[in-house]
Amino acid sequence: MQSDRPTRAAASAASRPVGRGPKVRAAVLAATLTELAETGYAALTVDNVAQRAGVHKTTVYRRWQDRETLVVAALTEHIAADIPIPDTGAVETDLRLLARGLIGWATSPSGRAVLSVMLSDAIRLPEVAEARRHIFEDRVRRAAPVIVRAVERGELPGGTDPAEVVRTLAAPVYFQLLITGEPLDEAAADRAARIALAAARATP
Amino acid sequence: MQSDRPTRAAASAASRPVGRGPKVRAAVLAATLTELAETGYAALTVDNVAQRAGVHKTTVYRRWQDRETLVVAALTEHIAADIPIPDTGAVETDLRLLARGLIGWATSPSGRAVLSVMLSDAIRLPEVAEARRHIFEDRVRRAAPVIVRAVERGELPGGTDPAEVVRTLAAPVYFQLLITGEPLDEAAADRAARIALAAARATP
Repeated sequence: MQSDRPTRAAASAASRPVGRGPKVRAAVLAATLTELAETGYAALTVDNVAQRAGVHKTTVYRRWQDRETLVVAALTEHIAADIPIPDTGAVETDLRLLARGLIGWATSPSGRAVLSVMLSDAIRLPEVAEARRHIFEDRVRRAAPVIVRAVERGELPGGTDPAEVVRTLAAPVYFQLLITGEPLDEAAADRAARIALAAARATP
Repeated sequence: MQSDRPTRAAASAASRPVGRGPKVRAAVLAATLTELAETGYAALTVDNVAQRAGVHKTTVYRRWQDRETLVVAALTEHIAADIPIPDTGAVETDLRLLARGLIGWATSPSGRAVLSVMLSDAIRLPEVAEARRHIFEDRVRRAAPVIVRAVERGELPGGTDPAEVVRTLAAPVYFQLLITGEPLDEAAADRAARIALAAARATP
């Protein structure tokens, strides 16, 4: 019993700087994403996450039962990533800005962390696959008004599927990021917008 | 000196079943791709590759100095993957078949192996990044006649960039494979063809 005390005291002291409740939660989930981005899913340990967050690992295990639960929570927490939803009054400009926002996210530390999990073996876990599905559904849902407004303005055909346009916009961005490794500059965003627009206009 | 003999004899015996020269080379590179597909780049060892190929690891080290050299050789060997280049006389059908061929490759064991290396930390090695660039340049070069013929038939505008069309065709396939995880069926191939065609026709 006595030998257990110093550990508990140390844990308590270590967790104090970030406070309790929501602050601890935010710190641990942010640390999880940073660890994911730096070391990848395979090498991720609760120990390293706890150390980076400045809490004892028992603090982590009290909230998340294991590594997988922790990773899913970190992904889910960052679903509503700040990709700005533009409303400039012109669909081409809106789509260009949307593509730039996506590029900004995908090349940011938290975007890279989320992607590294999705591209790792972790995607075989049903919870991670579900988190991935949820992330992209949320993206599409949040970006849909851009397409709806374009249809209302008569810039896109009536009955255009917003989800389809968002997917067509995202595909060239991820292709360059993951497959060809070309730089994701403004020209890449404009190209993605041009493709999505052409495909939407050509759809019967 | 004497203690070295049994090892050499064992190595010689182990390498005999697949023969010498080109056969050994092919067996080791195929084993490398299979190991990559099953365990990923991070977990790949020359020991496992040698065991799978039925050769002694000294046989591997005699030809490839390390793990990286071996992986680059395996990738390069499979650059000219058999993606059939169609010539049906109609650009839309050609693009659909091309997309189906790409899907067939990307979901095959060797395709998955090549992709798993490209998406791993190995891509930080200049040789692997160079192999990736080489693979995609080769793809584009081999598929370009499909676009050139479509321009000659007047199905696509003069001056259409074949590389651009091939990239636009490939992007939705990889997006579904790597990001959304949706099934890559014939409808997915047809959708990619439709997008590439619309984008090519809308390009000024």
